[in-house]
Amino acid sequence: MKRVLLILLVLYACAPTWAQIADDSQPAASNVEGAEYPRIRPDLSAEFRLTAPTAQKVEVHVGGQIVELVKDAQGIWTGTSAPLVPGFHYYVFVVDGVSVNDPMSQTYYGLDREASAIEVPEHGVDFYDVKDVPHGDVRQHWYFSRITGAWRDCFVYTPPGYDTNPTMRYPVLYLQHGHGEDETGWIRQGHANFILDNLIAAGKAKPMIIVMDRGTAARAGSQVAPVFGPDAPAPGSAGSMKAMTDSSAVFEDVVTQDLIPMIDSTYRTIPDRDHRALAGLSMGGMQTFQIGFDHLDTFGYLGGFSGPPVAFLFGGQSVDLKTAFNGVLADPNAFNARVHLLWLGVGTAEPDPMHAGIEKFHAALTQAEIQHVFYDSPGTAHEWQTWRRDLYDFAPRLFTTAIH
Amino acid sequence: MKRVLLILLVLYACAPTWAQIADDSQPAASNVEGAEYPRIRPDLSAEFRLTAPTAQKVEVHVGGQIVELVKDAQGIWTGTSAPLVPGFHYYVFVVDGVSVNDPMSQTYYGLDREASAIEVPEHGVDFYDVKDVPHGDVRQHWYFSRITGAWRDCFVYTPPGYDTNPTMRYPVLYLQHGHGEDETGWIRQGHANFILDNLIAAGKAKPMIIVMDRGTAARAGSQVAPVFGPDAPAPGSAGSMKAMTDSSAVFEDVVTQDLIPMIDSTYRTIPDRDHRALAGLSMGGMQTFQIGFDHLDTFGYLGGFSGPPVAFLFGGQSVDLKTAFNGVLADPNAFNARVHLLWLGVGTAEPDPMHAGIEKFHAALTQAEIQHVFYDSPGTAHEWQTWRRDLYDFAPRLFTTAIH
Repeated sequence: MKRVLLILLVLYACAPTWAQIADDSQPAASNVEGAEYPRIRPDLSAEFRLTAPTAQKVEVHVGGQIVELVKDAQGIWTGTSAPLVPGFHYYVFVVDGVSVNDPMSQTYYGLDREASAIEVPEHGVDFYDVKDVPHGDVRQHWYFSRITGAWRDCFVYTPPGYDTNPTMRYPVLYLQHGHGEDETGWIRQGHANFILDNLIAAGKAKPMIIVMDRGTAARAGSQVAPVFGPDAPAPGSAGSMKAMTDSSAVFEDVVTQDLIPMIDSTYRTIPDRDHRALAGLSMGGMQTFQIGFDHLDTFGYLGGFSGPPVAFLFGGQSVDLKTAFNGVLADPNAFNARVHLLWLGVGTAEPDPMHAGIEKFHAALTQAEIQHVFYDSPGTAHEWQTWRRDLYDFAPRLFTTAIH
Repeated sequence: MKRVLLILLVLYACAPTWAQIADDSQPAASNVEGAEYPRIRPDLSAEFRLTAPTAQKVEVHVGGQIVELVKDAQGIWTGTSAPLVPGFHYYVFVVDGVSVNDPMSQTYYGLDREASAIEVPEHGVDFYDVKDVPHGDVRQHWYFSRITGAWRDCFVYTPPGYDTNPTMRYPVLYLQHGHGEDETGWIRQGHANFILDNLIAAGKAKPMIIVMDRGTAARAGSQVAPVFGPDAPAPGSAGSMKAMTDSSAVFEDVVTQDLIPMIDSTYRTIPDRDHRALAGLSMGGMQTFQIGFDHLDTFGYLGGFSGPPVAFLFGGQSVDLKTAFNGVLADPNAFNARVHLLWLGVGTAEPDPMHAGIEKFHAALTQAEIQHVFYDSPGTAHEWQTWRRDLYDFAPRLFTTAIH
């Protein structure tokens, strides 16, 4: 009898393991703890699952695909995508026409909301994984902005050794997210901390502080334009562009008047332009060139990831570098001597106007003999895999004398 | 003509403000940025809104209420709850029978998933708000657990002044979340950092470090029991209890063998039991008594928030303090001399067995003349408002000599 009980106990204890051995698929790393679906197969197709007994039709929209799910007798809907491009993809279930999150996915702030997403591994690539190396802390820090008249928070990566070397000072990279995302994006979606942990451990990047703030702001007494509801501009509309431009102008003042002084007085920085970089993705790239070109006294290194200056995004052919951006690019020799790094990146799978816009900026810089780096990420779109690769190429070039 | 354009521009710029002035309601603080709904009215009722043109029926389940929403010609569903109890409530929309998140709400890890929630203000109460006081940082810290054989993360609150006083050492409170929640809960839902910032600024609590880890764990080579899917035990079932008990036993080893040594070697702690406290809510309260009673050599202060020892939750009448918990309570005088604080809290609106379980524990302790504090939070249920109040009462009693 005891033996029977023991066998039953062992069977019970092993049951979850069996389910995993039954095929070669694995739960996505982006799932909440204990969630078996979605699962990634060896060919990088993904199996999705949603319990919705009363629904009439369920689809999953993921990585440019629309997959119809099929219901079983228990009301569980399942379906499998075609192989997905490696990287991080937001996705939605569409249940009887209504877009909803997958309760089995962690949420990531993107698409102007808390969105489901799936992490598709890239075979042989681990530069953004948590590895057996020293890890920096990622701090959430609150500060009062005089520009917005409100408390804000930002995230601050302090590199390994920051706490054990209490007299050492570090250079700082200000790193911005894209439209519809927020200050959590570069850690949660981008793994910026693991990328730097790994680069620093390999001796490929200088230990640095990374500051990630929210790229939206409104002046004291006013509010950030509503994203949802009857007062919100339609996505991509002129009203939406105006909201972004207005917000970015306020954010520029937040960065230069509130954020940088606060960071330099709170953390052990080297508070000069030779040890201060600015980079961002998409909207954050546009903000980088806007804020950076306005404040070359503040930043010595600039990186635009899938985000050219706005003028190049929508009218690249007619931009005259002699007069654009208040003339900061008018004298190439002076610019080259002053700016330690001007870095542009984009993904080969990004549609126009983004890819064309950055190519035009790249071409104009080349023609004007302005030193810069251009990186075209193979096979990736306007997605986080592009931006992880960007950071991996960009960060080692920061705060080194060799590049100049 | 210019004046007309100017007026149009001003009208355009003011439009969002108009919408807010139209009634006395305010967007909930738990909304994503720019989301106008849900809105809280002065009587603490809440207006909800969901765009779902193709749906046949939409309800919101919030604070114990089920509110049917009504669709307008544009396919926007709206509805208003009865006044809600102040505090933080998870909620769901039920769209044609399927439970989904509100895209306008931030998500909070609870209910074993990323859940929507609404923050209902409590008039005249601001102890958990961000205020104009010095703020500690909240760090996400990664460490390798030998017990689980995997990397884990925890959150670490370092009090104001931690960075500017590099030789000062601090006591530590280990603070645990409940079942279905995770290591983010005490900051995002609980505002533990703001509670401590405010208490410390008022001179009511000692500056302390707070460590918040994930209360689930599985031994190296095995996995945390699945929460979803065919292998997952039903919530509240014996299998679910077994999973929690198994996980808590592993977590006990993580805390004592991995977490505490790591914290003491990474942060400037005072590494002794007189400067180390353990508390938690619900499952975290049960874990507090389990781990705490097993390791009184490690912890000098214990707090159970809506979480009695398991024996009292399900069988309080028959627990004999002379023999329970390996006899640590058998000698009241010895226990009273050794343990600086034993603290119990619950909400008056919590149903049995929770409220009764804690009352029984309180009665048994009283009868045995074991010193303790009992706090019954007026009008609140098994929700975060109870646990915020608990921390607000508990933290000032820590690491003081006056209480003993």
